[in-house]
Amino acid sequence: VANDLSRLMEIKDPILVIGAHDGMSGRLGQRAGFDAVWASGFEIAASHGLPDANILDMSAQLTASSEIKDAVTIPVIADCDNGYGNAVNSAHMARKFFRAGIAAVCIEDNVFPKRCSFYDGVRRELVPVEEHALKVRACKDNTDGGLFVIARTEALIAGRCMEEALDRAEAYAEAGADAILVHSREKTPDQLVEFAARWPRATPLVAVPTTYDTITAQELSRLGCRIVIFANQGLRASIQAVQEAYAQLLAEGRAAGLRGRIAPLQAVFELVDLKGLEESERKYLPTWDPMAFPQPAEIQEVRCVS
Amino acid sequence: VANDLSRLMEIKDPILVIGAHDGMSGRLGQRAGFDAVWASGFEIAASHGLPDANILDMSAQLTASSEIKDAVTIPVIADCDNGYGNAVNSAHMARKFFRAGIAAVCIEDNVFPKRCSFYDGVRRELVPVEEHALKVRACKDNTDGGLFVIARTEALIAGRCMEEALDRAEAYAEAGADAILVHSREKTPDQLVEFAARWPRATPLVAVPTTYDTITAQELSRLGCRIVIFANQGLRASIQAVQEAYAQLLAEGRAAGLRGRIAPLQAVFELVDLKGLEESERKYLPTWDPMAFPQPAEIQEVRCVS
Amino acid sequence: VANDLSRLMEIKDPILVIGAHDGMSGRLGQRAGFDAVWASGFEIAASHGLPDANILDMSAQLTASSEIKDAVTIPVIADCDNGYGNAVNSAHMARKFFRAGIAAVCIEDNVFPKRCSFYDGVRRELVPVEEHALKVRACKDNTDGGLFVIARTEALIAGRCMEEALDRAEAYAEAGADAILVHSREKTPDQLVEFAARWPRATPLVAVPTTYDTITAQELSRLGCRIVIFANQGLRASIQAVQEAYAQLLAEGRAAGLRGRIAPLQAVFELVDLKGLEESERKYLPTWDPMAFPQPAEIQEVRCVS
Amino acid sequence: VANDLSRLMEIKDPILVIGAHDGMSGRLGQRAGFDAVWASGFEIAASHGLPDANILDMSAQLTASSEIKDAVTIPVIADCDNGYGNAVNSAHMARKFFRAGIAAVCIEDNVFPKRCSFYDGVRRELVPVEEHALKVRACKDNTDGGLFVIARTEALIAGRCMEEALDRAEAYAEAGADAILVHSREKTPDQLVEFAARWPRATPLVAVPTTYDTITAQELSRLGCRIVIFANQGLRASIQAVQEAYAQLLAEGRAAGLRGRIAPLQAVFELVDLKGLEESERKYLPTWDPMAFPQPAEIQEVRCVS
Repeated sequence: VANDLSRLMEIKDPILVIGAHDGMSGRLGQRAGFDAVWASGFEIAASHGLPDANILDMSAQLTASSEIKDAVTIPVIADCDNGYGNAVNSAHMARKFFRAGIAAVCIEDNVFPKRCSFYDGVRRELVPVEEHALKVRACKDNTDGGLFVIARTEALIAGRCMEEALDRAEAYAEAGADAILVHSREKTPDQLVEFAARWPRATPLVAVPTTYDTITAQELSRLGCRIVIFANQGLRASIQAVQEAYAQLLAEGRAAGLRGRIAPLQAVFELVDLKGLEESERKYLPTWDPMAFPQPAEIQEVRCVS
Repeated sequence: VANDLSRLMEIKDPILVIGAHDGMSGRLGQRAGFDAVWASGFEIAASHGLPDANILDMSAQLTASSEIKDAVTIPVIADCDNGYGNAVNSAHMARKFFRAGIAAVCIEDNVFPKRCSFYDGVRRELVPVEEHALKVRACKDNTDGGLFVIARTEALIAGRCMEEALDRAEAYAEAGADAILVHSREKTPDQLVEFAARWPRATPLVAVPTTYDTITAQELSRLGCRIVIFANQGLRASIQAVQEAYAQLLAEGRAAGLRGRIAPLQAVFELVDLKGLEESERKYLPTWDPMAFPQPAEIQEVRCVS
Repeated sequence: VANDLSRLMEIKDPILVIGAHDGMSGRLGQRAGFDAVWASGFEIAASHGLPDANILDMSAQLTASSEIKDAVTIPVIADCDNGYGNAVNSAHMARKFFRAGIAAVCIEDNVFPKRCSFYDGVRRELVPVEEHALKVRACKDNTDGGLFVIARTEALIAGRCMEEALDRAEAYAEAGADAILVHSREKTPDQLVEFAARWPRATPLVAVPTTYDTITAQELSRLGCRIVIFANQGLRASIQAVQEAYAQLLAEGRAAGLRGRIAPLQAVFELVDLKGLEESERKYLPTWDPMAFPQPAEIQEVRCVS
Repeated sequence: VANDLSRLMEIKDPILVIGAHDGMSGRLGQRAGFDAVWASGFEIAASHGLPDANILDMSAQLTASSEIKDAVTIPVIADCDNGYGNAVNSAHMARKFFRAGIAAVCIEDNVFPKRCSFYDGVRRELVPVEEHALKVRACKDNTDGGLFVIARTEALIAGRCMEEALDRAEAYAEAGADAILVHSREKTPDQLVEFAARWPRATPLVAVPTTYDTITAQELSRLGCRIVIFANQGLRASIQAVQEAYAQLLAEGRAAGLRGRIAPLQAVFELVDLKGLEESERKYLPTWDPMAFPQPAEIQEVRCVS
């Protein structure tokens, strides 16, 4: 079954994906020119003020992903942790996200509850390879193959060897995964480069160059990474800007000094498609409005003439 | 009945309030040093990619306000449009927000569905003053007075005269409003200055210096504005920063160039209280963890020794 | 654009629709043999313990309707009050329900906030006919015609004459309504019979025989009512049965006496498709489960041998 | 910290609790005379059309429990599965339910995802006793002791011996549990009787006499069960009544035959407190309503005189 994301991959390489956590951040990504949106578990948890550690559940992730979906016209890829439990939970998750119009989900092979991959000193534990492969299959089977499923292995993050990462990825591809995401938190892309070089299948790879941020999307594409996800730079740009703006606001006691570093109201109106709203109002609201909501003219007169 | 916000007003003047639309933006406001958070209807709608025109409903506003409440320890003031219908709806709204731990709500006297006060060329219509006064009373009565109710008049935005604005504000104060918000979209604070000078009551005033951004909070306080709300500068700072970051990201094809203009991951971890999570894990997770999730050591051995 | 409900109408007359308020009530309707489910505003409000008076908002109705949709495979018709505001709100509503897979919506021509049509002594007010006709058009336009739109007139409930009811219905059909629902709360079907006899168009009619409960669906079909909605009998059967069971339970202090009048657990298991869950578990859960969750056998031994 | 449920236990023995899944079922329980409401995981899952197998997540359970809480004035006890993951998830859960005004939660010691205790042939696995005891403590610590925590052991369901059930219960009481629920699915109360006889602590017991339905609440109280939960009889009464009503409705093609076996509309109005709504309308809605919503009288005249 063809899908928005797979159709896009037929005509573009690499697919550039931007992380988002709400409708506005998704729309900013689309307006900037990205090809798809990553409904990032890390960003969504952080936007709630929570760490990325399976504290937010499927409902919260689905709500945020749907909000993003409703705000953009490009494909949405949802970051679905480990599928929120066992394969039965993953199957339920797949059906729910698919019905909400989400193009793709990504599930990873660590245990539930996981601990976030960027946190130092956390020993990662993985589920057996067979268990995760069956989750991948459950997601495909329960959406008649219509959902694009990215299988993510945390093997390298968990300190396992490259062989295990490759074995796991093969098992997931064999189980029906449409793409493989090998996560790495090295400062250099070496792990990814080696993995890609040894990857024996046609199944496309997905890269998330967060810590190894010097390699370009074009270079990643040449390695076989057909999808490149910039997972959380937007949220982090936002945090820094807001911190600076708030410090200045409190120091100066007024907002005048922020002009130039904050988007003008007009830009926000444009982003929320105020023009579309106005067109709808012209088209669908009755022109003879005063009939519905007449103002007490005489009273107003009395008060306002004085 | 005392309330977090009224208690705070006894010891601080003015109360500096920052607009927010999710847990993170609220927490950034608290960390910066603001006294309270404004769960902004404009910001929350925009974060969904929608204009501020009564398209998002009470459920959506309550969800966002509760998320903010859960992320901060300072009072949350919820921007509740016109109370989402008539006074019966307002009473229902008041009960719901009060139970969610929201300290204050603000309701305005325009008709439902409203049109956003900053949009040009929109003719505003107001409900009769008696109707809005009864909504204020319904909010107070239905929370045993525990909810702090800010009555907002859009009279000046709607092109009514100063007399009507004052008359309306008096009626709302008479009905039990704890504070009065007079909205103005002039570039200068003149309207607000005149209103404050002629305001005959002890009921405190609330200012939202969005368009008239040159007057300081301290000056507003001297006019009688005990609460000053910086309603949407955070979101606008965020939009501008994200737009710039995305443009650079796409131009360079990698994130390395963003270092310095995006918050480091460590800063995000600190904001989401990763340390608190780690303490919880140490305190409440069993130390003999391998029992729960043993790794198939022999198999790993075989794969990873080769 | 064809739609599940319109396709069904091509092969069946009348369409028998059952009211529901959650997944289980919808599924019971499908299992009994009804053709479609009515996500009833009255039932959904009552299930929350609230009167049917625009207190629950669009989000709440969408959540309930989606839950029903996920629990059945027959078309779902959502009762969407007056479209939750003006035509812009209706357009937003239409897009949301359409994306959630809801086959049809029904919008009525009373003002917001409405008062429930069955409550005595309530004077109903209607919006101008042009306003409601434009809402119908907004719903069709914003779903590319894919959403089946039922326009409901409350003219007869509001004490207007038959001519106005017919005029309104014609205007709504002209605006694109796929079917017309004329509501009546008479004890006899006379109003509906007259309306149907004088209805000059091919646009099908919808009946909700709640108060006039003696006419059969077959007779209604012969009058031109292609859709017959039994709107709230399920909830009312449930309330009566629960009241009786609770009285007995408290009187007897134990549940044994309820056997025979409460569904056996096995029947509930069948309704929630426990067999499907078990099949999923067999198919997708790893067989070598003890590896994942080993029990501390020795300790258990010690404790349980004693 | 005193709590609604513990205060109630000081004056009543046993506490009779009724299972519920939405606001209406909770309210019916209160009206019938029960002392508290059990927000049943089994009922809530079934009301969505889903089996009770950790498919619904914390958000769904919190939404349903809050809806029940808003519909009653007696304490609500939420059935929180195993705490939705590890002790960190349990702590998050406890804070959320406590803030929502839920009086008590119940957490059980089986693994995640669990399988429902009534399903035949399912081998249950339990988490180590230390792990569950720490969850209990996490719930108490994170609500400053304000949340009443019921620790439930599935030891007997899982086929463990009575000694293990007692050991587990003691460890949970030691960790701070306010009450102990020992689940049994025997047809007779023998297991419970033995457990209660050998229970060496003052910590009160909780019984859920679903399968062993011949023992009365009064007899259970004499054994030391201070809380007796009738967990799902309401839903099952409802299912049976609805099935019978639907069969009759379809057979007869009209609702007239259901009179007497379905609650009259007036009874529903009373249950949703229509009188309260009317009082609110009289008190808070402006009497001079026509100003707000005038009807186009002349036009109506023309249409309706003819």
